[in-house]
Amino acid sequence: MKSTAVPTLDMVAARAGVGRGTVSRVVNRSAHVSERTRQLVNQAIAELGYIPNQAARTLVTRRTDTVALVISESAERLWGEPYFAGVIRGISRELDASGLRLMLTMASTRTDRENLEPYLLGKHVDGALLMSLHGDDCMPARLQGSGLPVVLCGAPAGALEVPYVDSDNFDGARQAIQHLIDNGRRRIATVCGPQDMAAGRDRLRGYRETLREAGYDEDPTLVADGDFSEAGGLTAMRRLLETTPDLDAVFAASDPMAFGALRALREHGRTVPDDVAVIGFDDSTLAAHTDPPLSTVHQPVETMGEEMARRLVALIRGEETGPSRTILPTRLVLRHSA
Amino acid sequence: MKSTAVPTLDMVAARAGVGRGTVSRVVNRSAHVSERTRQLVNQAIAELGYIPNQAARTLVTRRTDTVALVISESAERLWGEPYFAGVIRGISRELDASGLRLMLTMASTRTDRENLEPYLLGKHVDGALLMSLHGDDCMPARLQGSGLPVVLCGAPAGALEVPYVDSDNFDGARQAIQHLIDNGRRRIATVCGPQDMAAGRDRLRGYRETLREAGYDEDPTLVADGDFSEAGGLTAMRRLLETTPDLDAVFAASDPMAFGALRALREHGRTVPDDVAVIGFDDSTLAAHTDPPLSTVHQPVETMGEEMARRLVALIRGEETGPSRTILPTRLVLRHSA
Repeated sequence: MKSTAVPTLDMVAARAGVGRGTVSRVVNRSAHVSERTRQLVNQAIAELGYIPNQAARTLVTRRTDTVALVISESAERLWGEPYFAGVIRGISRELDASGLRLMLTMASTRTDRENLEPYLLGKHVDGALLMSLHGDDCMPARLQGSGLPVVLCGAPAGALEVPYVDSDNFDGARQAIQHLIDNGRRRIATVCGPQDMAAGRDRLRGYRETLREAGYDEDPTLVADGDFSEAGGLTAMRRLLETTPDLDAVFAASDPMAFGALRALREHGRTVPDDVAVIGFDDSTLAAHTDPPLSTVHQPVETMGEEMARRLVALIRGEETGPSRTILPTRLVLRHSA
Repeated sequence: MKSTAVPTLDMVAARAGVGRGTVSRVVNRSAHVSERTRQLVNQAIAELGYIPNQAARTLVTRRTDTVALVISESAERLWGEPYFAGVIRGISRELDASGLRLMLTMASTRTDRENLEPYLLGKHVDGALLMSLHGDDCMPARLQGSGLPVVLCGAPAGALEVPYVDSDNFDGARQAIQHLIDNGRRRIATVCGPQDMAAGRDRLRGYRETLREAGYDEDPTLVADGDFSEAGGLTAMRRLLETTPDLDAVFAASDPMAFGALRALREHGRTVPDDVAVIGFDDSTLAAHTDPPLSTVHQPVETMGEEMARRLVALIRGEETGPSRTILPTRLVLRHSA
């Protein structure tokens, strides 16, 4: 997109070898310019594609006071999981306060995201917030490389130097597992999140390291893959109950997966927490209303949203340079499932 | 917006008094142009503000393949009421199929909407879908008047000539009231929706006309105002139970208001449906899970979304002119509350 960078008056002045004021006078058809200078400036204007018409230029260059929120999930997930609503509430609140508008778009496939890039770089928005990125998605780096302010929700995969806001996933998982250990659970399973997302990886790492430090043997049959969704949690828990029926606790790396796990346990006639303790991650509104009410790791989703918006506004206004990272604390909320 | 019309190559040719091909040759720095002609063309380019750089010009003129969905509600309502999720699912599905992108934005105040207009008219989107408009909002007319394709969800207030998609609110209410009459209910109340929205007005009209045709006396103490929200339904039902304790049925003009009404009835020790029959409007996913399961008027929300998107795409592609109106049928779904 480098080629679409909008030429500035300074660029015209440099190419024509004249001062800024001279370019202005030519553009404004002032009489106090020699014919030779006028020709030089007009030549530079035409060659660079500079847009002297104020209205047209405004169209191309002005701030839109609009920020895109790109969510790499389907509408189904977006409305089904209160996590998203929480983050978006926080984002909306902070942008409102800053006089910026939020445009939300879903881009669940790689093709969707690729098609979206030219739009985001086409001066339709002043910056972008990206949520729910998977794996080696290069969109954040490409957008940032093209000069668009970008802030991510969640640490990026790999060594990407893009600002992000996240909650302390590792420590949240550590608290959950420590609680299960302290309560005498011996066979602690986990339904983990997608391993191409930092949230999935960090929560699994918290599970593994805490167990190892407590002297537990590593047992791969206690780890089942999930995708953060309720359906994924249900399937994973059913699998765990078949392969490792002696488990006495499960840490689900998201609340929806914990809801699915509770259902699978009920199907198999296991009582919670007596037979199997369950801990989720999110502390979503539904967590207090499950049967039994779900113990879960609270992450401050609205604050995450606010912080993302705050960082992006600072970048747009040029008040901040370089990639910041903000990690917000998590805490274990005990209800009745563990 | 007329002043920002992007100058064309033909306009440059006309002003310079040369042919299109000559302008192209100058722009492409072909050698086969005399110095004098080059100067004339460059002068015309600069004066008109023509953008010879292809990428920059594309930036200004091309279709964005993007459609805005403007929802005149808060994020709270948007995520709290499944009605919105349903319509949006339908819109997304149809736009996906047409290769268009959806950008969703909330504009809950008049100021939000006024600030949004220049953006919508600033070539950032190809068209707009508007949901949850209230009263004498002139945004649809102004957008359409400025040449932006627009389709509304719900009939507009007044005599606005803007295409819209709606469900048959009047007939849905009629079916609900007729069912209550047929089951011997004598004191039928309603918690009605906002009267500055067609959905609110048409459902109240269905209630009134059906009762009148059945020979019931009109009783204003049986009508309480709501705002389609659960909190509104709770407050309105409490008020009805105080002013008109002999009511034996209530038609709530939205499911969330029916959920609020069920809560108020429980507070007052009234059993549903024995003491008081309750019918809602929407047939949202939660309706099957209330205690008792809610009888309600089904409206095809996803189909409404699809139809809105289909109409808008036709307008954008110039396949349709003039305001269409699509009214989709509603039907009463009987569960246990009535």
